[in-house]
Amino acid sequence: MNDEKVRIALDAMGGDFAPASVVEGAILAQKEMGKDVELTLVGDKGKIGLELSRLESNHLPFHIRHASEWITMEDNALDVVKRKKDSSITVGLDLQKSKQADAFVSGGNTGAVMASALLNLGRIEGALRPAIASCLPSEKGIVVVLDVGANADCKPQHLLQFGVMGSIYSNLVLKTENPKVGLLSIGEEQTKGNELILESYKLFSNSSLNFVGNVEGRDVLKGTCDVVVCDGFVGNIVLKFAESIDGFLTSLVKKRVKKNPLFRLGAFLLKISLGDLKQSLDYSEYGGAPLLGVDGTCIICHGESSAKAIKNAIRLAHNMVRNQVQEKIKEKLASNAKVLKEMNELQS
Amino acid sequence: MNDEKVRIALDAMGGDFAPASVVEGAILAQKEMGKDVELTLVGDKGKIGLELSRLESNHLPFHIRHASEWITMEDNALDVVKRKKDSSITVGLDLQKSKQADAFVSGGNTGAVMASALLNLGRIEGALRPAIASCLPSEKGIVVVLDVGANADCKPQHLLQFGVMGSIYSNLVLKTENPKVGLLSIGEEQTKGNELILESYKLFSNSSLNFVGNVEGRDVLKGTCDVVVCDGFVGNIVLKFAESIDGFLTSLVKKRVKKNPLFRLGAFLLKISLGDLKQSLDYSEYGGAPLLGVDGTCIICHGESSAKAIKNAIRLAHNMVRNQVQEKIKEKLASNAKVLKEMNELQS
Repeated sequence: MNDEKVRIALDAMGGDFAPASVVEGAILAQKEMGKDVELTLVGDKGKIGLELSRLESNHLPFHIRHASEWITMEDNALDVVKRKKDSSITVGLDLQKSKQADAFVSGGNTGAVMASALLNLGRIEGALRPAIASCLPSEKGIVVVLDVGANADCKPQHLLQFGVMGSIYSNLVLKTENPKVGLLSIGEEQTKGNELILESYKLFSNSSLNFVGNVEGRDVLKGTCDVVVCDGFVGNIVLKFAESIDGFLTSLVKKRVKKNPLFRLGAFLLKISLGDLKQSLDYSEYGGAPLLGVDGTCIICHGESSAKAIKNAIRLAHNMVRNQVQEKIKEKLASNAKVLKEMNELQS
Repeated sequence: MNDEKVRIALDAMGGDFAPASVVEGAILAQKEMGKDVELTLVGDKGKIGLELSRLESNHLPFHIRHASEWITMEDNALDVVKRKKDSSITVGLDLQKSKQADAFVSGGNTGAVMASALLNLGRIEGALRPAIASCLPSEKGIVVVLDVGANADCKPQHLLQFGVMGSIYSNLVLKTENPKVGLLSIGEEQTKGNELILESYKLFSNSSLNFVGNVEGRDVLKGTCDVVVCDGFVGNIVLKFAESIDGFLTSLVKKRVKKNPLFRLGAFLLKISLGDLKQSLDYSEYGGAPLLGVDGTCIICHGESSAKAIKNAIRLAHNMVRNQVQEKIKEKLASNAKVLKEMNELQS
């Protein structure tokens, strides 16, 4: 393989519209970034071949790695990862483990990708828990929210590491200088929050992060800070709430139009005016969400990912490898002796 | 006092625009519901008098109850309630305690209203924790979300009672038949959630509630269920996130208009089309949020409440008293022997 290119393995069988959407996304990426990436499609060879023929793209320089099984959205994550040894997710992550790929992108079963990544790649040394980092739009730019679903119950030291990883991600990938990190809570004062946040506040205050204190629900879309830290339960609820806004607004406008057809013009202009609202509120458009803290580069895409979203995820994987996000996280977690000491004290 | 009218005490000093907004709201309510309500303005007699003169409403049949102090938004709730014995909040709640009023409405410091209500009115017998119940719009109608801030950390038996109280509120005030109750979580399956939700699921399943299982962040605005139960930490974050959507959309449109002035027409029509989006996402427009579980009827309004919002809160207080919400909650919590037994087992 060409060492100068970033080698990315794609789960061709993952997602509601796979393999079509993944193969199409790979073609878009190949055309746009062919000089920078080398793509391997992982999955059923026959199905992938059919898609490539359908899209008249057999000539493109893809690698294909056959995997005889695939994991569905309904499969139980932990169980299936151990049972389906030759699934596209496991085979794809194996490529990364054996240094045949630099990154893995999947729109498949999120739980299975996480479980398989932990099993196959393991955690970065010192990383207590991996976290899914999602991007949300705000009045001031893109905000990184993490964790959005990997860990339903967290401890303060987990949140602190999420802050560290999110800060590096925001800095290296989104090019935010000295990212402002906030703890998602129910009041700005140090005394406001649940037990987890009250304890975490102290840890964050004593860390090397650019900690701006607690932020509230309203601060996410306001863009008060660049990195919003929360446990995966709260983060997932906020993310899914945000993703539902577009559908809600559409239904609101439809009702208006029904009442008064003159509003049809307004609805049409609304659609143009806010054309990208859906996209800007849908994390797949930011190219999926990285699973930070595992020993590799792993991007999780929305199950409903379009070809464009897959292409964006490939671009994100490329950016993360080029900017050495994983290495910087490793470095930071190892070198931040003060933080580690505090964490050890807390853990003991 | 006229027993046929619902007697409502108003915190004239509570809120960012008090006493002006409260006095104006009282005037609106008096004109609209004068036959049904008897209003007492609680606060600085001089200031209230000045507002009444300014609004040429000295002739209206308000009672005025002087209170020499008031609690600011910055005051520490617990501390100030004990310190300021003659605050408009304490005096207003005292009126209810001494049966001179049937309900209390305040747009003041939420923490202080809660603390004072617990201190002065106490809890309904059997109620473990009071909860703030907020209304959010959805594609299918109004959804009750609780708790939205009274309890940052909860136990399963607290959530179960929130479900019971929210269900009664939805049924009696919003007239929902057999309200569908959902637990806010990160997946529909019984196995998805944090520790609190996993434990609560079992309690809800064995209760007499019309429990529809877990709902996700996206289900709130979709209106999948009528009552969304969560702890006050999660609920407050979701509520404040929802309240920030309008500002975010406005900023999105402004940026568009800046890029292309033609969108100005779109923005104008958007404003008409979605005229009430701000209102529908702002809980003050539903007339504030009741504090359920305290032994009285207590409505908490947004600090930024307009006169219209105060009027709506008065209407809500009236509805709650007329529909005997408090009595029904009392009855249900006492009679639901099965639930109480389960709770006692959990508590022991």
